[in-house]
Amino acid sequence: MKITLSELAKKLNAQLTGDPDCLVTGPATLENAGPEHFTFITNSQYRKFLHNCQAGVVIGTQSDLNDYSGNSLIVSVPYVSYAIAASLFSPDLFQAQGVHASAVVDSSVKLSDSVSIGANSVIEADVILSGGVVIGAGCYIAQNCEIGEGSHISANVSLYHECTIGRDSIVHSGAVIGADGFGFANDDGSWIKVPQLGRVCIGDNVEIGANTTIDRGAIENTVIEDGVKIDNLVQIAHNVNIGANTAIAGCVGIAGSTRIGKNCAIAGGVGLLGHLEIVDGVTVTAMSMVTKSITKSGVYSSGTPLEDNKQWHKNFVRFKQLDEMTRRVRQLEKELKSIKED
Amino acid sequence: MKITLSELAKKLNAQLTGDPDCLVTGPATLENAGPEHFTFITNSQYRKFLHNCQAGVVIGTQSDLNDYSGNSLIVSVPYVSYAIAASLFSPDLFQAQGVHASAVVDSSVKLSDSVSIGANSVIEADVILSGGVVIGAGCYIAQNCEIGEGSHISANVSLYHECTIGRDSIVHSGAVIGADGFGFANDDGSWIKVPQLGRVCIGDNVEIGANTTIDRGAIENTVIEDGVKIDNLVQIAHNVNIGANTAIAGCVGIAGSTRIGKNCAIAGGVGLLGHLEIVDGVTVTAMSMVTKSITKSGVYSSGTPLEDNKQWHKNFVRFKQLDEMTRRVRQLEKELKSIKED
Amino acid sequence: MKITLSELAKKLNAQLTGDPDCLVTGPATLENAGPEHFTFITNSQYRKFLHNCQAGVVIGTQSDLNDYSGNSLIVSVPYVSYAIAASLFSPDLFQAQGVHASAVVDSSVKLSDSVSIGANSVIEADVILSGGVVIGAGCYIAQNCEIGEGSHISANVSLYHECTIGRDSIVHSGAVIGADGFGFANDDGSWIKVPQLGRVCIGDNVEIGANTTIDRGAIENTVIEDGVKIDNLVQIAHNVNIGANTAIAGCVGIAGSTRIGKNCAIAGGVGLLGHLEIVDGVTVTAMSMVTKSITKSGVYSSGTPLEDNKQWHKNFVRFKQLDEMTRRVRQLEKELKSIKED
Repeated sequence: MKITLSELAKKLNAQLTGDPDCLVTGPATLENAGPEHFTFITNSQYRKFLHNCQAGVVIGTQSDLNDYSGNSLIVSVPYVSYAIAASLFSPDLFQAQGVHASAVVDSSVKLSDSVSIGANSVIEADVILSGGVVIGAGCYIAQNCEIGEGSHISANVSLYHECTIGRDSIVHSGAVIGADGFGFANDDGSWIKVPQLGRVCIGDNVEIGANTTIDRGAIENTVIEDGVKIDNLVQIAHNVNIGANTAIAGCVGIAGSTRIGKNCAIAGGVGLLGHLEIVDGVTVTAMSMVTKSITKSGVYSSGTPLEDNKQWHKNFVRFKQLDEMTRRVRQLEKELKSIKED
Repeated sequence: MKITLSELAKKLNAQLTGDPDCLVTGPATLENAGPEHFTFITNSQYRKFLHNCQAGVVIGTQSDLNDYSGNSLIVSVPYVSYAIAASLFSPDLFQAQGVHASAVVDSSVKLSDSVSIGANSVIEADVILSGGVVIGAGCYIAQNCEIGEGSHISANVSLYHECTIGRDSIVHSGAVIGADGFGFANDDGSWIKVPQLGRVCIGDNVEIGANTTIDRGAIENTVIEDGVKIDNLVQIAHNVNIGANTAIAGCVGIAGSTRIGKNCAIAGGVGLLGHLEIVDGVTVTAMSMVTKSITKSGVYSSGTPLEDNKQWHKNFVRFKQLDEMTRRVRQLEKELKSIKED
Repeated sequence: MKITLSELAKKLNAQLTGDPDCLVTGPATLENAGPEHFTFITNSQYRKFLHNCQAGVVIGTQSDLNDYSGNSLIVSVPYVSYAIAASLFSPDLFQAQGVHASAVVDSSVKLSDSVSIGANSVIEADVILSGGVVIGAGCYIAQNCEIGEGSHISANVSLYHECTIGRDSIVHSGAVIGADGFGFANDDGSWIKVPQLGRVCIGDNVEIGANTTIDRGAIENTVIEDGVKIDNLVQIAHNVNIGANTAIAGCVGIAGSTRIGKNCAIAGGVGLLGHLEIVDGVTVTAMSMVTKSITKSGVYSSGTPLEDNKQWHKNFVRFKQLDEMTRRVRQLEKELKSIKED
């Protein structure tokens, strides 16, 4: 794959400065790009790399590329334009190949001609796979699941019965969707399983990372709205609801029945307790613990700083005295006030 | 599936008030139930929903349903009774279907007539599968594993060699049981693998969540006792021992050789260091770090509160001065005392 | 398998004291070893167990075994010697068995005679598998992957296209290598996927734990150098670089583009933010949050202590007042100074 800068400018709706016939064959970073590469600048702190940049062309804003003498493509949101340019060079690994001979597909499955099912995948009764759906190798799609047009399921994914995935969504390898929520009733010390009778409903343009788990609802459904992006090793418990276009980074855990609003950003390792309401537009920084509902959009954090182990240990121990110390400070203030008033 | 309230009362050993011939066809929440649903109340704070409740019948305690005028089933532990009622409506997805033609089952495997093995599963030599065992699609059960009566292994589960699972246990998709514990000897900077020669022994009535990992012991075994319930994405290291009826929520990590007692509750995201002893009846709240053994039953916690990012950052920085501040407060107390004594 | 102590001494290059013809049949712990077992002592605090030790032989240092009257094998690093001894008793589960009839192997795949491919595995076009490579059952190895001599891939592992693994490495079940990094460009609220065009490059003698995920690079590669050991359920984001012989325990999350040096130890549950540089020889203790680069080798920690829930809650709340309290203490110091100067 190669493309001239004039063609690329057209595809990106960008303003080209420089040689329209220059050919580029793929992307590279600003630091390492050669004359055959296109690259991009998203942050003015990287302007220092422009000085020695060898790239065939740099995609960026007018202000970042003002002083750049090489070929440039001026756009309003460089990272979006880069994404579009890079997608031209993305290998098409998911070409329609039909149903592999080794796949086990129940006779009741409805699949359009353009569906691709990988080797050794198993598709149970009454599943519906729309046009352009690609199921990777070794997947298990249980009874009554439904997957919308153009969605891609990577190898070794498991979908339990009755789950639905919308259009143009991606599920990465090892993800498990629709396993039983963690529901048990305590019967005098031992646990009785509470049947998990809801489903998982996933919208359009959703991406779900490798080895992420999304449990089915207990009575009603677990819901992942359109445009949600979920990274790897995320745990989403039963009856959680994730609002449209919210992004959730790796290793996040969300306990049962919590509702997260639209356009939120939950950073890596965050934990959210159950039955919370998080409004739209909330950002939670990495490894924070969310124990209460959040009623106002904004950026929220918890946690303590990394320190040299010995120094940390001293402060760690003092944390246990924090309440007592607050009382001592108050007492000191009181006594000092009384001395001053004397 | 539908059932009359008089039949349901009999199955739950409940006292019915209202129409014995009323039919219900499934469960619903207290807020959303219609006349065809049964529902339940477990917490008096939900009594407010009884006022407008449309349910065919509500399962609850005498005290919670005292003033309720609709059909009611009075029981002592409503959540247990609900679990039993809901189980009547749980789809039987694990019907015995025999061994699928595509499964690869070693000729030495002992399996009773009622065993079901899903498509494309692989069962290695000398595995023993007792009556009613269901192995989902795409599973791998290595040499010498043994699975007790009525246990269900969901799709795409991996069991390494010589692991045992008791009766009536459930393992969800993507779980990996019996992989090597993380054992390496440092040989002048590089790591020598320490063979992991123990097994994983799982009891009866255990449930193991999706993508959870339980490592085999180094010399002796990793043990999960009867009635333990483990959620998704939990990591259990080599030689851990989990006592009977303990519940472990999602994203918990338990380091090597730690022993957790019976009837404990470990909330989501908790981490336990290695070689600890946790007595029976301990609850650890979400995302806590357990660095020492716990010798007394009770509820334990660690962690800091979520705050607006700017305010958090101020406190975050101050944490490093906690020990110094304690000393300053002590100094102030001393000086003030000396002033007062003058 | 059984071995005489004189043979064992030879293999360990150890100095034997005691009966050279004594036979041992496997390892056991110091506490539970019988006359048929070999065992080891790595820490002088376990010397108390030597008193009643029934082991066929104990592997240890001269100083730890000075007063021990039973058979002993004196070595310089007992845990390394134990690892070597135990490896003699490790079952060879990965014997070359050729390509299972049910495996789906593209005709373009290059594989040496000694390669073993498990049942129902799928190997895509142009994959290269060197001598002695063992692929477990149910694996998916995508296009253009390359796996070096003697590496073992356990059951149900997924490798995306173009990933490379060196010699003598081990990948445990459920691991996913090469899924797309979490890269999206925000286009006025909705997310545009940024193609992930890099690869994952894994060195020699690497071990990767069960259900661990390592994402492919965005433009350049994600790199795991030689001798790195990674435990279960670890998330490694795109463009991370892990230096040689670094060990990473379970449930760690490493955000994008972070570089960890050589010979580091990252304990369980640690989270590292993106774009950090961690120098060689750094240890981070369990569940710490690393928000800044670490420029000096040493031991680092963060986090707060476990407390009784009621006491914790008091201190938890006080954390929000930490900055304010520091100001109050400073004010007290100022006022006291002014009083003393009067």
